[in-house]
Amino acid sequence: MSDLLSKVPFTGRVELLLINPEPDRMGERHERAELNLSFSGPEGDYHVGHTRASDSRMLKRFKRGTTVRSARQMSIVSVEELVEVAEKLAIPEVRPEWLAANLVASGIPDLTLLPPSTRLQFPSGATIVIDIENLPCRYPAAVIGKHHPGADAAFIKEARGKRGVVGWIEAEGVVRLGDAITIWIPPQRIYAHT
Amino acid sequence: MSDLLSKVPFTGRVELLLINPEPDRMGERHERAELNLSFSGPEGDYHVGHTRASDSRMLKRFKRGTTVRSARQMSIVSVEELVEVAEKLAIPEVRPEWLAANLVASGIPDLTLLPPSTRLQFPSGATIVIDIENLPCRYPAAVIGKHHPGADAAFIKEARGKRGVVGWIEAEGVVRLGDAITIWIPPQRIYAHT
Repeated sequence: MSDLLSKVPFTGRVELLLINPEPDRMGERHERAELNLSFSGPEGDYHVGHTRASDSRMLKRFKRGTTVRSARQMSIVSVEELVEVAEKLAIPEVRPEWLAANLVASGIPDLTLLPPSTRLQFPSGATIVIDIENLPCRYPAAVIGKHHPGADAAFIKEARGKRGVVGWIEAEGVVRLGDAITIWIPPQRIYAHT
Repeated sequence: MSDLLSKVPFTGRVELLLINPEPDRMGERHERAELNLSFSGPEGDYHVGHTRASDSRMLKRFKRGTTVRSARQMSIVSVEELVEVAEKLAIPEVRPEWLAANLVASGIPDLTLLPPSTRLQFPSGATIVIDIENLPCRYPAAVIGKHHPGADAAFIKEARGKRGVVGWIEAEGVVRLGDAITIWIPPQRIYAHT
């Protein structure tokens, strides 16, 4: 049987692994040398769970707090895009822990623009399915504003399309610093009836 | 916070609901007036489960039988596309139960081409996330060949791009015959680095 996904002609690299132990400690940096991905998410992160409560992004479809299966188990950003965002904000750097990222990758051009249902696979077999880009919102903006007063509003505008992606765990396994990231994308085309 | 998904300017309609009670009874028609969708899939179908064993579609990424989170909980096809496939095969009809479909929709042009991460929502709140198009494979082909000798090979070739989509349950609820289907699609663009 054929596989619909095709491998892109480059691999990424895992540069940093982070967890968020508690929602109200956003912005703290908790590095890990490896991260165990289970079907409920990255071990040790408070986002772990098969389901989550729907949030303000989903108000057109769900009453706030509706239980939905989580497609936001992992937050993935890229070194290169964070540099671009920092340049746009005219600040020295945007630290990935300010964005509650779990995985910082390098070598993936326009990581945020990877198509939905793209698979990111690691040497252990661990695999993440990308649901969608992550919109810059007020929570990381507030953390950035704490470090660089005034940069919060700019972040929401300037980080759009560069703030990484969210996804869910398709196959369990460990991810280690320095791991290669193999990328599989679905057929690309534009749905015409919109 | 903004919602990345946008509603398309039409709704679909639920024309038929089916379950597959056992893998070795493929091709039998088991109609339902309503279908309960839980996070593990459509109640009563043998595909139900949070996880599944990886199959031949995934051999480039997983050893066969690896436990993966299921993105194939539901199979969705369209009345209009099944008519097109039947015309191409020069047979009177392609019955959805031959394809192990769970939901037959009408009114959704090019249903198979709906983008990955599209959300299909029903009046109860039940929501399906589309992972990817469903490739015509030898199992439904064999069922069609039993009814129309010789049509099996043609099915694999001619049904491509018209054989529906697979997806997973994002929000639980009931789906009923005649339900409207609201469709939310992610931003569309082509990833350039392939």
